[in-house]
Amino acid sequence: MLAGDNSMVKYPNGNRKEFHTDPDTLKKSNQPTFSRRGMTLEEEINESNEYYLVNNQAVIYKKPTPIQIVSVDYPKRSRAVIKEAYFRQASTTDYNGVYRGYYVDFEAKETKNKLSFPLKNFHQHQIEHFKRCLLQDGICFVIIKFSTMNRYFVTPASLIIANFEHDDDQKSIKLTTIEEASIELSIGYRPTIPYLDAVDQLIKNKGIKTNNDR
Amino acid sequence: MLAGDNSMVKYPNGNRKEFHTDPDTLKKSNQPTFSRRGMTLEEEINESNEYYLVNNQAVIYKKPTPIQIVSVDYPKRSRAVIKEAYFRQASTTDYNGVYRGYYVDFEAKETKNKLSFPLKNFHQHQIEHFKRCLLQDGICFVIIKFSTMNRYFVTPASLIIANFEHDDDQKSIKLTTIEEASIELSIGYRPTIPYLDAVDQLIKNKGIKTNNDR
Repeated sequence: MLAGDNSMVKYPNGNRKEFHTDPDTLKKSNQPTFSRRGMTLEEEINESNEYYLVNNQAVIYKKPTPIQIVSVDYPKRSRAVIKEAYFRQASTTDYNGVYRGYYVDFEAKETKNKLSFPLKNFHQHQIEHFKRCLLQDGICFVIIKFSTMNRYFVTPASLIIANFEHDDDQKSIKLTTIEEASIELSIGYRPTIPYLDAVDQLIKNKGIKTNNDR
Repeated sequence: MLAGDNSMVKYPNGNRKEFHTDPDTLKKSNQPTFSRRGMTLEEEINESNEYYLVNNQAVIYKKPTPIQIVSVDYPKRSRAVIKEAYFRQASTTDYNGVYRGYYVDFEAKETKNKLSFPLKNFHQHQIEHFKRCLLQDGICFVIIKFSTMNRYFVTPASLIIANFEHDDDQKSIKLTTIEEASIELSIGYRPTIPYLDAVDQLIKNKGIKTNNDR
């Protein structure tokens, strides 16, 4: 039952940061700040998606956090209140949408490391999701932010998949490998993260690549 | 702020059925049955998506219901419990994904009517979402189920948009119009709703159509 994964996510744990920085779910003001530059990667991407949306350049959204609802009150003349619910683990990556006829699917990850990108924040089901989307000719990648250096990369999903499945206990990808295989982004003002420029490049490369990297 | 629509949805109301039949959110056993044939349209589509997924035919998911979380408990040695939360109105349609390199985006609607399909269950933002996705060359449609007749149609989003924006108080589309403009589905066993057959047809038609219907 691949699509019907009902497993609950335990919080707080390794995903806590992701949850706390989700504007869908909690008001930022109550939460600790994780980015010293004022904006989390998620906020930067949401802002960029909004920019692309209003300018008719792409239609890309972050998916809502999946929630398992157990109990709901229906007060009279008032909106329903969810009284008991739990976080669920998503079956897919966080972002998807359409750009120039292409299906775009990606995940966003931040690290404070300076020499490598740890893969521990990826789950097996996200890797499976990437593989399936690539089989359907989707454009799949990860936006990686090295926050201490303020560097941003668009890294093809194929690199993540290959390294995730490598039988190595310390799963991580060296920065030098990421530099070689990725498109580095110059951070702008509008949009904050101009990642569609890199997507153009991925689409272009796709045309001349063989199917060996699938 | 198109993408950041934070408006709350009042429940119970016209959307109540949608909520009650959402396997993401509530256990079915506690809920009234809305379909006399045992399965709601949403369940049928989820089952079909699961079938397409495991057979590597397409990667299409229903998006989780967006929830505004207000209060969360973190009990020791136990998973986090959401104690207060509210339903939010989605900014997009319910389903999207990738099929043969195409971005697929759709909504599913059921009606008990026999002669027409009411458009009252569509929101302006869903219509706007369809328009934006069409501009990006997405494959956009509605799966309409006439439940009393057990007939299923894949109706191009362009027909819904055109009729939604018609300045008519009684917004609905006649069954005869739907029959003309749609692809009717033969309901099968695996998958329950073989809607990708109709998507093949939409892709084929797209190739020979002008841009006038955008």
